[in-house]
Amino acid sequence: METINIGIVGYGVVGAGVAKLLKLKKQLLEARTGALLNLKTIADIDIETDRGIELGETALVRDAMQVIDDPDIDIVVELIGGDTIAKDFTLKALENKKHVVTANKALLAGHGNELVRTARLNQVDLAFEASCGGCMPIIKSLRESLVANDINSMSAILNGTCNYILTKISQDGSEFEEVLKKAQELGFAEAEPSLDVDGHDTAHKLAILNSLAHGMEINLENIHVEGIRNITPVDIEFARDFGYTIKLLAISKIHDEHVEARVHPTMITKSNPLSHVDHSMNAIAIDADATGKTMLYGHGAGMMPTASAVLSDIADIARNIIAKTKRRVPILGYPEENIRPIPILPMAELFTRYYLRFEAQDHPGVLAKISGILGENQISIKSVHQKGRQSNGKVPVVMISHRAKELWVQTALSQIAATDSVVGEPVVIRIEEDEQD
Amino acid sequence: METINIGIVGYGVVGAGVAKLLKLKKQLLEARTGALLNLKTIADIDIETDRGIELGETALVRDAMQVIDDPDIDIVVELIGGDTIAKDFTLKALENKKHVVTANKALLAGHGNELVRTARLNQVDLAFEASCGGCMPIIKSLRESLVANDINSMSAILNGTCNYILTKISQDGSEFEEVLKKAQELGFAEAEPSLDVDGHDTAHKLAILNSLAHGMEINLENIHVEGIRNITPVDIEFARDFGYTIKLLAISKIHDEHVEARVHPTMITKSNPLSHVDHSMNAIAIDADATGKTMLYGHGAGMMPTASAVLSDIADIARNIIAKTKRRVPILGYPEENIRPIPILPMAELFTRYYLRFEAQDHPGVLAKISGILGENQISIKSVHQKGRQSNGKVPVVMISHRAKELWVQTALSQIAATDSVVGEPVVIRIEEDEQD
Repeated sequence: METINIGIVGYGVVGAGVAKLLKLKKQLLEARTGALLNLKTIADIDIETDRGIELGETALVRDAMQVIDDPDIDIVVELIGGDTIAKDFTLKALENKKHVVTANKALLAGHGNELVRTARLNQVDLAFEASCGGCMPIIKSLRESLVANDINSMSAILNGTCNYILTKISQDGSEFEEVLKKAQELGFAEAEPSLDVDGHDTAHKLAILNSLAHGMEINLENIHVEGIRNITPVDIEFARDFGYTIKLLAISKIHDEHVEARVHPTMITKSNPLSHVDHSMNAIAIDADATGKTMLYGHGAGMMPTASAVLSDIADIARNIIAKTKRRVPILGYPEENIRPIPILPMAELFTRYYLRFEAQDHPGVLAKISGILGENQISIKSVHQKGRQSNGKVPVVMISHRAKELWVQTALSQIAATDSVVGEPVVIRIEEDEQD
Repeated sequence: METINIGIVGYGVVGAGVAKLLKLKKQLLEARTGALLNLKTIADIDIETDRGIELGETALVRDAMQVIDDPDIDIVVELIGGDTIAKDFTLKALENKKHVVTANKALLAGHGNELVRTARLNQVDLAFEASCGGCMPIIKSLRESLVANDINSMSAILNGTCNYILTKISQDGSEFEEVLKKAQELGFAEAEPSLDVDGHDTAHKLAILNSLAHGMEINLENIHVEGIRNITPVDIEFARDFGYTIKLLAISKIHDEHVEARVHPTMITKSNPLSHVDHSMNAIAIDADATGKTMLYGHGAGMMPTASAVLSDIADIARNIIAKTKRRVPILGYPEENIRPIPILPMAELFTRYYLRFEAQDHPGVLAKISGILGENQISIKSVHQKGRQSNGKVPVVMISHRAKELWVQTALSQIAATDSVVGEPVVIRIEEDEQD
């Protein structure tokens, strides 16, 4: 049986998970791939901490180059994270003609095009199933299962921390800061939560998926990103009254000349399967022309779910090595020469429906004033709601709009802010309309 | 660019869908696979009916052997259905060293082991993504994405007709026969509905998935099968009161020495993601040791969703042909020499929870009689419910049991039937317990 040597760079939680699976599932993997998957070396700056994995013959070293420069190693698994040294190591490994498996969404979103070019130049594979949606087979589905489909749209819950926090606010009526604090205590949120709660992690994943879905260059910088810090129990309660749930969604929709790619809190109805995805679970809904609507659901993070996805990439590459082939499926689903830059629609050009909440002065004529400005900006209001009267002389006024242009909405909101009718910043949450199956 | 010749046997709805995709997505498929996928010949006994597909150079012939014996054809796509001539054609194609792609679950469930052996003997591939769950990538997930996982359990909605009927009974409160008739008028059910509504189609799919999940020989005959003919609006209403939804589920659970494999109407709670899968949609929930719970959701049937799955198999085989490899992934996920017969747990040995509904005589002591017999048979009752009094002097009595053995329940039910306390057959619906994530 052919031996395939694997080296791991980055022995954190996921690194330990991958090592654990490679050891624990040795026989299963041999039977299923026909190869002996040998974990030769693990590199990490911390070689002291006991991860509880029986390493056996596997070397644990401090210098990543002992993996990357080892001529015996066929597959380098990059699990450091971030896009500084992880980038250098990944490029070096590709240049050394190693196949690379990575779970690093920040690296791919920021530098994926360069990595793909480098892999092509060196005729090796770059695999990243674990980068988006943890154990859900999103990458494989887009690259292989949906091979005969054009993807119309995707919408996805891709960050477990945000989904956990939104579920908790929704269930307990607590404020964001309070829930975040609890989530941090329970280990559901990082001490530095910005990457998650401000939507950047979701945007990284969307940049990757967008590229795979539409055959376009990876483009992170033009994705519009909003996080969940401003979501309050009040808005969740209003949403519920209207039959909506609020989720942080990554949305991608293809048009003739451009693609929509945006990350923001979104109201969806109960008939949208994503509305039932709670706690730290992830899901992606894909609407493709042959399949119609499909959805994948699963753990989007965590030691073993992420390790499972890494292993599926390792097994794929191992099967290629045994079959004496490589680069069997193009890295981004389309061959590199077919990948084109597709412009991302500027946010101001977006048409969608809006939930708007104002803290209005409790004076006669205020509603007329707000409605008037919206009307002047071509924004047609579907319904207006007012819930009680607050003690400080302000009343929350909620409006649901028909489809309107983001530019019109932002212009109207500035004009409304300049009047004395409202106080504070209005809350703007976009609504995804239901399409019938 | 290498040309790969494809022949279709069976030009019905799915056959036409596959032909349509091969023609319509020619450029996309060439770009993504690097091969020219040429639909050389289609065989069907009906060569007159216009399917609305522009066939161009593709020959339409009456004799399937013109596909199967054509030395130029690399991939035979079997879309006849059933397990009589489809079996002969498939075996002949494999013997002729053609790779075969099929959507035929009845064939695989009934004769899969023989087909797998024949494919092995002739060193060709046999692919069947479209046989289970339409466009959902179930087969690919089990064979490739979950490669490092042991599958603990699967539960799945695999028949769109049944799910459509159950959804309609649930929404409208209509009786089964009435909904079936409407479904037939609308084309959601076959004129001869038995294969669907009696659960056999679901059992075919479970036999296939069971084999892939656990590395076992395909075993249809020991799967316990019940359909949905006896599901009434009354039971659905009771179920709703208790927080349950009724779905026809395929259930597979692995134990040390055997596997549970059963198809029957099942009560599940709202926290089970399958409870939100409505109308003709399909879904499969998989609980694997590394990934934890995951779910796939999508159209389980229909012309284009099924064709999309067939195309993913064709593309996989095409990529193998170009890479000059074959049988890259074992047909059943495990190499044939590792596949063993695993006994299916006899239904009488099953432990689960039960919903029991009796039409009880409205006499004093009847409840004591029923409860007494259940108690004597070790069946512990969690709750008893009675809803109104029927005009004919009978009252529906509903009991929810704790975990009990199927044998005990069946014994108790016979004993109860032998008393004069109840009339007619009791309704028995098994309940899937919620496991916490």
